[in-house]
Amino acid sequence: MQIGVLGGGQLGRMLALAGYPLGLRFKFFDTTAEAPAGQLAELVVGDYADEGALARFAEGLSLLTYEFENVPVAAAARLAQHRPVYPPPGALEVAQDRVAEKTFFQELGIPTPLFYPVQTRNDLLDGLERTGWPALLKTRRLGYDGKGQRLLRSPADLEAAWQELGGQPLILEAFVPFERELSILAVRGRGGQVAFYPLVENHHAGGILRKSRAPAPATPARLQHEAERIATRVMEALDYVGVLAIELFEVEGTLWANEMAPRVHNSGHWTLEGAETSQFENHLRAILGLPLGSTAPRGQAAMLNLIGLKPDFARVLAIPGAHLHWYGKEVRPGRKVGHITLRADTPEALEAHLGRLEALLAETKD
Amino acid sequence: MQIGVLGGGQLGRMLALAGYPLGLRFKFFDTTAEAPAGQLAELVVGDYADEGALARFAEGLSLLTYEFENVPVAAAARLAQHRPVYPPPGALEVAQDRVAEKTFFQELGIPTPLFYPVQTRNDLLDGLERTGWPALLKTRRLGYDGKGQRLLRSPADLEAAWQELGGQPLILEAFVPFERELSILAVRGRGGQVAFYPLVENHHAGGILRKSRAPAPATPARLQHEAERIATRVMEALDYVGVLAIELFEVEGTLWANEMAPRVHNSGHWTLEGAETSQFENHLRAILGLPLGSTAPRGQAAMLNLIGLKPDFARVLAIPGAHLHWYGKEVRPGRKVGHITLRADTPEALEAHLGRLEALLAETKD
Repeated sequence: MQIGVLGGGQLGRMLALAGYPLGLRFKFFDTTAEAPAGQLAELVVGDYADEGALARFAEGLSLLTYEFENVPVAAAARLAQHRPVYPPPGALEVAQDRVAEKTFFQELGIPTPLFYPVQTRNDLLDGLERTGWPALLKTRRLGYDGKGQRLLRSPADLEAAWQELGGQPLILEAFVPFERELSILAVRGRGGQVAFYPLVENHHAGGILRKSRAPAPATPARLQHEAERIATRVMEALDYVGVLAIELFEVEGTLWANEMAPRVHNSGHWTLEGAETSQFENHLRAILGLPLGSTAPRGQAAMLNLIGLKPDFARVLAIPGAHLHWYGKEVRPGRKVGHITLRADTPEALEAHLGRLEALLAETKD
Repeated sequence: MQIGVLGGGQLGRMLALAGYPLGLRFKFFDTTAEAPAGQLAELVVGDYADEGALARFAEGLSLLTYEFENVPVAAAARLAQHRPVYPPPGALEVAQDRVAEKTFFQELGIPTPLFYPVQTRNDLLDGLERTGWPALLKTRRLGYDGKGQRLLRSPADLEAAWQELGGQPLILEAFVPFERELSILAVRGRGGQVAFYPLVENHHAGGILRKSRAPAPATPARLQHEAERIATRVMEALDYVGVLAIELFEVEGTLWANEMAPRVHNSGHWTLEGAETSQFENHLRAILGLPLGSTAPRGQAAMLNLIGLKPDFARVLAIPGAHLHWYGKEVRPGRKVGHITLRADTPEALEAHLGRLEALLAETKD
């Protein structure tokens, strides 16, 4: 059975690596011939607006999924006329527009930061009356890894932010004084069954995820249940199928939804070694209508992204429990080119090995 | 870096799946275009005697390995003139001839069943004087999965066995009344460092491995040490690099070497989920000169081969801790087309799930 994947980045590549043992074959669609999934499966290069390229891609596929949440909804919907596309394109639609996404959370009764749609400079000034300072000004669409957003600390920041972002649909969001960032990875099968990985603690810098720890340390069961309730409401409302990630803020012991990704997610990479079944395999099991696999963790895991740097592999692999995932991409500043999972049986061992690994990566940057 | 692999079967396929996360690329050489590694990497189809095909294969490769122990030594040696080939072709030479292999074990002081080279019918009769009955008559070369061998229970079996096997170099082996069959998976790096997986208990039927359990139940540390001493002697004598498997008989609390495979091995497949680092990744780490990964088990594992049958994947994956590995081959009687690893935290859970899985496979056969 051949699965079509829209997007041929590292997420697609890891989907294929998880899918080959299930006897699946893969075909990827991407706008660039350098897409790293093309190193291990068929790759169709084209534009998402090119109907001919999409038709060529769709030939022989049993079903489709995507690994990139900015796939144009029109392309996904066109493909869905002929073959199942999971997750449902409606999930893309919600996730692609920050205003639609936060409105959707609100309608489901899920706490989310105060927000205000901004089209004009006057909208921005009105919005700031409500959010107060600091606040975040973001593009409604196509933002990722901190791109397309500006923190407004004081009126002095207004002009530069407007110069950079004005002229397109924007959203102003209140700054939430959260204690930490968490994420929940959830999966829903074609029959409606659901499973959840333990909450992950995430550390960003410059808008890019740098480090995740799973299960998130010092997390009461109550918080896990709250996250699962949030994810269940979202998945049921969308009649969702596949893996879904929701980024959450922990604020005074409660969870606020920040954003969602209708796909496998960077904060779930630790599941490759740290859980009984990886997010990639569970996504495939879900979209194929197979039983979901156990999401139980195996010991303690931490994940470090490799951003714009290639460490000495021998030194990385000399660290106990270190598992390297190099994506086969050219190294460029700010680009995610790989990640390392550390797995250990105890939190103490994890901390010790993490210290070594972080020191090694810090040295690589110099 | 591109690695060349002689042989494109499931072992090669699983090597590639383990190697992509290390940033490696692969090229396979096989005599058939249906070789399943060709579904996820470049495949050169040719004959091992075809120098042109081998030269085409070798282009662009940084180093070579093999996944098939009947690679003609001449082909491996020819390739080794231009690029490193690991494990060393000398290991192939020893492993390909049952007489050379058992002589090698003997010379290293490793117990092995009494054997006798057989060329003529008279040799056979002489040999039987020494081995007594029952005894095993096998081809010296190219036997695998029980092919090319006959059990001689009494003089009544002689004629049929000779009709089938006579006319080629043979070996007669005493039948060893072993308690059980075990195997040791060992790995040796380019710098001589070694690591060992826990002993595996193997169950064969019709000469084909059906089930492995790891770590082997009720195994004293003394046996593990003995197995490691045996593997170390073999690897040092061959200046070995890579994963090596040795099949052992447990006889009254001691270990006898039966045969060795200079490659990743079916009885090590459980390491994909059941060990911190899989045999496939450790083979690649070894041949690349990278530090070896931890061979520590993660809980309890069992591996069942799928031989000539395709079970209902949904029913397999509904069993807790079941991990499917389908090789992408056409199902034919007696052909290994996949395996399933079961992983559990306790021996009791493993037994319970194994019972379910074995019942399911028995039903599939009907």
